[in-house]
Amino acid sequence: MERAAILLAAGLGTRMRSALPKALHPIAGRPMLNHLIAACEQVFDRIVVVTGPDMPALEKAAAPHATVVQRERLGTGHAALQAAPLLEGFEGDVAVLYADNPLITAATMRRLVEARETADLALLAMRPADPARYGRVIPHADGGIARVTEWKDATEAERAITLCNVGVICAAAPRLFAWLRAVTNDNAAGEYYLPDAVEICRAGGLRAVAVEADEAECRGINSRMELAAAEAAVQSRLREAAMAGGATLISPESVTLSFDTAIGQDVTIGPNVVIAPGVTIEDEVEIRAFSHLESCVVRRGATIGPFARLRPGTEIGAKAHVGNFVELKAAILGEGAKANHLSYIGDATIGAATNIGAGTITCNYDGFAKHRTTVGQGVFIGSNATLVAPVSLGDGAFVAAGSTITAPVAPDAMAFGRARQEQREGRAAAFRAARRKEK
Amino acid sequence: MERAAILLAAGLGTRMRSALPKALHPIAGRPMLNHLIAACEQVFDRIVVVTGPDMPALEKAAAPHATVVQRERLGTGHAALQAAPLLEGFEGDVAVLYADNPLITAATMRRLVEARETADLALLAMRPADPARYGRVIPHADGGIARVTEWKDATEAERAITLCNVGVICAAAPRLFAWLRAVTNDNAAGEYYLPDAVEICRAGGLRAVAVEADEAECRGINSRMELAAAEAAVQSRLREAAMAGGATLISPESVTLSFDTAIGQDVTIGPNVVIAPGVTIEDEVEIRAFSHLESCVVRRGATIGPFARLRPGTEIGAKAHVGNFVELKAAILGEGAKANHLSYIGDATIGAATNIGAGTITCNYDGFAKHRTTVGQGVFIGSNATLVAPVSLGDGAFVAAGSTITAPVAPDAMAFGRARQEQREGRAAAFRAARRKEK
Amino acid sequence: MERAAILLAAGLGTRMRSALPKALHPIAGRPMLNHLIAACEQVFDRIVVVTGPDMPALEKAAAPHATVVQRERLGTGHAALQAAPLLEGFEGDVAVLYADNPLITAATMRRLVEARETADLALLAMRPADPARYGRVIPHADGGIARVTEWKDATEAERAITLCNVGVICAAAPRLFAWLRAVTNDNAAGEYYLPDAVEICRAGGLRAVAVEADEAECRGINSRMELAAAEAAVQSRLREAAMAGGATLISPESVTLSFDTAIGQDVTIGPNVVIAPGVTIEDEVEIRAFSHLESCVVRRGATIGPFARLRPGTEIGAKAHVGNFVELKAAILGEGAKANHLSYIGDATIGAATNIGAGTITCNYDGFAKHRTTVGQGVFIGSNATLVAPVSLGDGAFVAAGSTITAPVAPDAMAFGRARQEQREGRAAAFRAARRKEK
Repeated sequence: MERAAILLAAGLGTRMRSALPKALHPIAGRPMLNHLIAACEQVFDRIVVVTGPDMPALEKAAAPHATVVQRERLGTGHAALQAAPLLEGFEGDVAVLYADNPLITAATMRRLVEARETADLALLAMRPADPARYGRVIPHADGGIARVTEWKDATEAERAITLCNVGVICAAAPRLFAWLRAVTNDNAAGEYYLPDAVEICRAGGLRAVAVEADEAECRGINSRMELAAAEAAVQSRLREAAMAGGATLISPESVTLSFDTAIGQDVTIGPNVVIAPGVTIEDEVEIRAFSHLESCVVRRGATIGPFARLRPGTEIGAKAHVGNFVELKAAILGEGAKANHLSYIGDATIGAATNIGAGTITCNYDGFAKHRTTVGQGVFIGSNATLVAPVSLGDGAFVAAGSTITAPVAPDAMAFGRARQEQREGRAAAFRAARRKEK
Repeated sequence: MERAAILLAAGLGTRMRSALPKALHPIAGRPMLNHLIAACEQVFDRIVVVTGPDMPALEKAAAPHATVVQRERLGTGHAALQAAPLLEGFEGDVAVLYADNPLITAATMRRLVEARETADLALLAMRPADPARYGRVIPHADGGIARVTEWKDATEAERAITLCNVGVICAAAPRLFAWLRAVTNDNAAGEYYLPDAVEICRAGGLRAVAVEADEAECRGINSRMELAAAEAAVQSRLREAAMAGGATLISPESVTLSFDTAIGQDVTIGPNVVIAPGVTIEDEVEIRAFSHLESCVVRRGATIGPFARLRPGTEIGAKAHVGNFVELKAAILGEGAKANHLSYIGDATIGAATNIGAGTITCNYDGFAKHRTTVGQGVFIGSNATLVAPVSLGDGAFVAAGSTITAPVAPDAMAFGRARQEQREGRAAAFRAARRKEK
Repeated sequence: MERAAILLAAGLGTRMRSALPKALHPIAGRPMLNHLIAACEQVFDRIVVVTGPDMPALEKAAAPHATVVQRERLGTGHAALQAAPLLEGFEGDVAVLYADNPLITAATMRRLVEARETADLALLAMRPADPARYGRVIPHADGGIARVTEWKDATEAERAITLCNVGVICAAAPRLFAWLRAVTNDNAAGEYYLPDAVEICRAGGLRAVAVEADEAECRGINSRMELAAAEAAVQSRLREAAMAGGATLISPESVTLSFDTAIGQDVTIGPNVVIAPGVTIEDEVEIRAFSHLESCVVRRGATIGPFARLRPGTEIGAKAHVGNFVELKAAILGEGAKANHLSYIGDATIGAATNIGAGTITCNYDGFAKHRTTVGQGVFIGSNATLVAPVSLGDGAFVAAGSTITAPVAPDAMAFGRARQEQREGRAAAFRAARRKEK
């Protein structure tokens, strides 16, 4: 039997104080909606995302999954019902989840759908350390649950219950949509509440059960503070996974990883490192302090940093070195090559064992287009060189320090592009005397 | 009725192990004395700061408020009394506070002065998680307080009391000074204690009450460890305020803000960012990881970093970009302009939409004075350019990569200041062979 | 009476998932084995390290102490016994410790050897917050201990005991080795357990006692997570010591120190600073944010950073300044000298009060050897200068901005090594028009 998930993502997130739809705020480099989608894809065959009006970026983020717009904000029950036309004729189970509750794991989702097979409706619940103003889950004499009550509608006795509603629900699609059509907005907030389906299910003589999940994965994100807390929780998971896989994180809390960071064995990551999405770090690599990597590959045994910046499209060869205040963008650095000091290497291919001197700049941009620099193997580029692309340097070439290179350099040739030194004796002393007099 | 505050700031802070007076150690970029003064200015009409001998920096920090020197260190009662001549004839309430207790909020100060209106003396107290060696506040049968006892003078029964003395006191000026003149130094430490005023007040048949405040704002700072704890507490407040205002701090604990940092909505601040005093960040700005900002303005939609340094006097235009290993000092970067890689732009005005190539340096200093660089709109400055100030470049000018520019460049002109490239065939191979032979 | 320590360091550390022997994983910049050796050297006269086969790096780290290889991994009792031949004829006390338990302090070791003088065997024990699966220490009716039982061999009643075995043991050498020879491997794991010596000691009518130590120093390191926890604990100690000594750490948790970092009084260390081994920082120095120091000396009153990198062999003179994106390697920067922006100064001696302009690069490497740059006092080096070593600049020399210097510059001379500026009117506009057409 197929299973479907409806993801409610229409929220504006007023408390976020943001022009960005709440579901698009990122955690560990990925929008929260996509965290939820990634988990759902492991459990559900179909996914429908309910968005709000004028949220094209959200629709794009949801692709290739279907989206439907909730035009009026009338409550979660109403929102879930918007997905009904897209699930026309679908007979399997459907679960309703929330984009601002994105840390629920696939394992928990599986427990929910399995619990549904033992009852007509399964609801996700938790026992938070502080139940606060969460809705409460009211037990039923048969060991299942009777209904859910919002905190503002709850009696004192109900508020004493510690089992709290997460809001996630699972039932057979035809039944769920029928119940949602029967939900009313007769409550303190005047909203159509999804969890009211529990009571309607019971009223029809059917059975509802709760599945308890860990509070940590159920906490919603309604403010930037809660977003930061979710980020911290996900970072913790990612760091522990990296360490368990054989990487040393000297100061784990100071390392920022991304949802898709791939880290090999015997990798050492120093303090204060940021790894944005799309990064693969092979075995025995050292990423030293204050490095910033994004969408790049670092091959076995390479050393990066401190203070290195690897930008998208960069590939660092095995045992290569990238040092301080060096930026690489769309650059391929050959095996054992070195770019150790104050350089910008953009749109370039650098051969194996080539040495890029301190202060070297590739001029890849002329104000209109980007051009490529190609440097062969075993090349020596002197310090403060300027390589004006498009340009190529043959294997074994040598560029004198301080040179501007605008034309190709032949293999094994030495290229100069700098002025001859002149000296004016005593002129510095005279200059100082004059300047002192001015003052 | 006017109100006055006496701030005791004479402490040397022996446990700080510092040549700097304790009251001048900064928290979130501002001396602790000035944190206290800023809160006091919201509540009190007059402020008098009691300093120690030879603390001119402290007097300067206290300005424009009056200061008076406590020549001998005879205790807090004696210190407060030094302010009496400056408050000659003042009939209103006066509160005595401590520079090493700088986190007390204006709201708490207001509660203290309001409590004074219900009694003759109001004392600030707290119930710390660990009462430790704090002085204890002894209750009076009338619901007020009878007296304060130092921990070293307290009985076991008194030590069992959990209400602890913060030391801050408020009473009508003439009375307070009269009580302080009656305080003796008949105690274990041989000091004139300010809180002894409570007992003297009671002895005169008058009434004293306590106002309880949160421990967090009452903790004193006597060591660098306590200074670090206070810094952490203030940083927490500042980060939460930024997030509540609509900024995302990806890793809040790794962001250092200042007491006066102004942050707009939909601002994103990456991990490991330091914002020193005097910074304004407008809406939709992104401050990427490893950036360091001080006394500057970043206009709407600009992107800063990673690894950017904005120094005092810098103004970054709307949608402008400042990239990695770039330093700006007293520089104005026009709307949409870019300085993305390894540049030093000092004492410069850069026009809108101008592109500063990688490795560009403005030479603003000749060893004697600073000179200005003026670059027009839509200018293209090639990589590794050296702009020797004073110099100006007209709108639409183009500087070839690797050029040193010492004279003005006309609008729409192209400027070169670099040597022609020469090549010596096979010379690199010969050089290597010779060098290998030497080895 | 002499005392000896046997350090068991043969562990591979399977859970570390590392090719490096576990004992060599560093904490605060020093291998854990060397942390333990440093503490042992304060208490023991002789040290023997038991390594595993093929661990030459471990033998090197243990030097000058003797090492012996445990060829088969048959348990801790067997491992300790490997040291017996090296302690042939040694009559004093011997303690057995573990390289993966490296945070035990010399003070605790002293308590252990003193306890041995009151009994025939002394065992280190702890009462962890969570006793978990630690071996339990079974009490003896005489107030000492009867034996130690591994968790997997313990009864429920024994598991209820909260005193846990740390494994460290001390006894007279001849006795200890005799007991170890009597240990059998008749247990769940089939290993020869060192703590079985306790029971054998008792069986011989002798007395054994336990010494309790703080859990924090007794926790073993078996995974990268535990390694990170140990690092955090050691960093905390180091930061507190720095603060107690009169240094301000604005955000202590963001500062990474090393086991041997020496920090003076009235030093300020900003957020996000990494100090690798071998660093001495004198009084009144400011290390600003994002600085990275290793094996260098910073003299009184100097200012470093933000974004500065000091590499091994560097010495920064009193009141000198090193600014952002500046790297020094094996460089001596004279008193009051400045290198404030985007420079690489390697293998250089810079005189007092000399000013190194932004973007200056010393070309110390020619692909074969390193050469030295010598700059006199009061020299002014213009921005973007390239100094090709070996080269020397006399006192008071002046290098024009953008120059490449390959020959010596006389004292007080002005040196130029740059091309003359040329301008082509209207050429930039024409270039843009052509490029636009191409597009």
